[in-house]
Amino acid sequence: MPGEQVVRRCRELARISEEDGRLTRRFATPAMARANALVGRWMAEAGMAVRVDAAGNLVGHLPGSEPGAGTLLLGSHLDTVRDAGAFDGSLGVLAAVACVARLRAEDVTLPFALDVLGFSDEEGLRYGTAYLGSRAVAGTFDPTALELSDEDDVTVRDALAAFGGEPDALECASRRGERLLGYCEVHIEQGPVLEQRDAPVAVVGAIAGATRAEVRFTGRAGHAGTVPMELRRDAACALAELVLAVEAAGRTEPGLVATVGRLSAQPGAPNVVPGEALASLDVRHPDDTVRAAAVGGLRARANAIAAARGLGVTWDGRLDTPGVAMDPWLSEGLSDAVAVLGLPAVRLASGAGHDAVALSALTGTAMLFVRCAGGVSHHPDESVEAGDVAVALDVLDGFVRSLAG
Amino acid sequence: MPGEQVVRRCRELARISEEDGRLTRRFATPAMARANALVGRWMAEAGMAVRVDAAGNLVGHLPGSEPGAGTLLLGSHLDTVRDAGAFDGSLGVLAAVACVARLRAEDVTLPFALDVLGFSDEEGLRYGTAYLGSRAVAGTFDPTALELSDEDDVTVRDALAAFGGEPDALECASRRGERLLGYCEVHIEQGPVLEQRDAPVAVVGAIAGATRAEVRFTGRAGHAGTVPMELRRDAACALAELVLAVEAAGRTEPGLVATVGRLSAQPGAPNVVPGEALASLDVRHPDDTVRAAAVGGLRARANAIAAARGLGVTWDGRLDTPGVAMDPWLSEGLSDAVAVLGLPAVRLASGAGHDAVALSALTGTAMLFVRCAGGVSHHPDESVEAGDVAVALDVLDGFVRSLAG
Repeated sequence: MPGEQVVRRCRELARISEEDGRLTRRFATPAMARANALVGRWMAEAGMAVRVDAAGNLVGHLPGSEPGAGTLLLGSHLDTVRDAGAFDGSLGVLAAVACVARLRAEDVTLPFALDVLGFSDEEGLRYGTAYLGSRAVAGTFDPTALELSDEDDVTVRDALAAFGGEPDALECASRRGERLLGYCEVHIEQGPVLEQRDAPVAVVGAIAGATRAEVRFTGRAGHAGTVPMELRRDAACALAELVLAVEAAGRTEPGLVATVGRLSAQPGAPNVVPGEALASLDVRHPDDTVRAAAVGGLRARANAIAAARGLGVTWDGRLDTPGVAMDPWLSEGLSDAVAVLGLPAVRLASGAGHDAVALSALTGTAMLFVRCAGGVSHHPDESVEAGDVAVALDVLDGFVRSLAG
Repeated sequence: MPGEQVVRRCRELARISEEDGRLTRRFATPAMARANALVGRWMAEAGMAVRVDAAGNLVGHLPGSEPGAGTLLLGSHLDTVRDAGAFDGSLGVLAAVACVARLRAEDVTLPFALDVLGFSDEEGLRYGTAYLGSRAVAGTFDPTALELSDEDDVTVRDALAAFGGEPDALECASRRGERLLGYCEVHIEQGPVLEQRDAPVAVVGAIAGATRAEVRFTGRAGHAGTVPMELRRDAACALAELVLAVEAAGRTEPGLVATVGRLSAQPGAPNVVPGEALASLDVRHPDDTVRAAAVGGLRARANAIAAARGLGVTWDGRLDTPGVAMDPWLSEGLSDAVAVLGLPAVRLASGAGHDAVALSALTGTAMLFVRCAGGVSHHPDESVEAGDVAVALDVLDGFVRSLAG
């Protein structure tokens, strides 16, 4: 059963880690080299020519029958977060390898070439910046990133050189200028919607843009026993109002997710009225205009809360990434392959970023989400059903063949 | 000017510290011994017989003319918090010394004896438990407290023995069984009400009881980008509702102060929906019944918030101290002395605890609050006006003489 084999391979790959007892695989580490070797072996068994590119990405190449027909890119990433699950990234790479193996087993030769990419850095765990691998492929790698240091003061440049990559010839990893049919990525949903809808897969319509900010209210600290309520300037109460305004914004605007994930009050003693309070803000929506309006509304709300309470407020923008629309034609192809299987047509926006964000600067992209148990991800409990993976493999197979059609 | 002298002495005393550059004076430390020596010299100059009792309290004794007329106790504490101001505690001791000096300067002999007490531990900084000194005087010292250890693993017993006290004869410090007229304590307000009311002093009606608890909401963590709002069980939003309910409770019930001073959300990453959130709760009111009703209401509210959101909630009670009413007759005496000066009759509840709490188990107690700048306390900026101190000295003098009347 091909779904079971992919799940088994994901679990086997998950044993390759920098740490005993849990899965952590950062960019350009010995663990990544071992992962590349194992997946490279599976690629070779599926009939692919295997190499590691200048940015440490694993590349399996299956030639097409017509030299001028271009290349279809499939794949995902092989690095992980700390204490990761077995499927985030790996599933997309191994599903693509299984797709190639099936074509070969059924003696199907495509007119176009097919490359399976195992990206070297999507999570950004080692250097705090995502997409080092896929940006190199897209030709958008920022050379200043070579000087970033990890916690052991090893730069990207030195790590990549030690890994066998070519930090000073990253353009060799770029696929810019080639004739490409597009990029298609299978990935676990990392959310609970497919489980709620009782569907195994969904076609992604867009990857949401995100705004992150840090909001700080400043009032006046005081003794919890001696300052009457009417004389207080309590920063934590302002923060509480903002947290509820953020939730209300998300509940009011369809498709918007808005989160306060981190909050604190200073000085932080039970018997002291907080003079300062801090909240992180994360707002996402597939439509940048909607997101910008929501963020603007929340910023005005923070100012109004502060003004009503006689507090100071600062708004420190930390991140502002635009949304990325998937390619309509490729996505249509995926949807058709889902429909052929008689499955419900679920279309989702991705709230999380993926390599497809970087690849969209190079070529049209499409993504297929696979249901994961409880929506749990970035956690050892991350889990998918072999039956759902089998569906994803069928969809991918139908999609790839339709491009040859 | 007697007000200025007391302020000057407070500032001089504040230079006696365990730490360079800031005032920190813990129970039974060499710094406390030097403080006792300095204040003891001022007591002796005012004509008092000076000793340090078995619990390390400084005691200045002024005999009365009638041996059977009993003793009036005056005073406050000589220990401090870390990085303290110059007036919390010290003002009450040095005001009492100034009161004795004035009686002597004016050749007034009282029928009753007058003892000025400089308590050795009110803040509880060294051992985390307050009133070690005043409880010994009240005869309510809990002997198990002798085995408490400080951060250097020195027990109360060993610290007190090294200080020259008598840990195994603490009953010698007790004034139980003596004929006492009461205890009167001058103290800075540590709050902003007198400043608001434009009054130099207030008579304290009661010291508020306090409830402290820790409230924990448990929901489900999730990815801030992938979990839709309607599927979230966000613990931080529940916490925000509770913070506002706590504030509303304080604003609704006259005299109630209710505070969330510490709050946090786990896992605490900007891109993760909080699965757990924690808030400290501090509720105070002079009337225990009112406080209990308010706490009960907030506990029901926390449960309702959790139920409406499908979260778990735990309520961990940390402290529950009853309110302490001041002696009506002594307080009337203080109020009369204020009225004689033509000053507004301000009556306040104390939201903070004081040695009078411990002494009230021994004898009737009364307290006079003195305005302090901005209500600031437990901070080097703590400050009082010499003119306000002069008023307090006049009130104390009038009060003491009225008892002789």
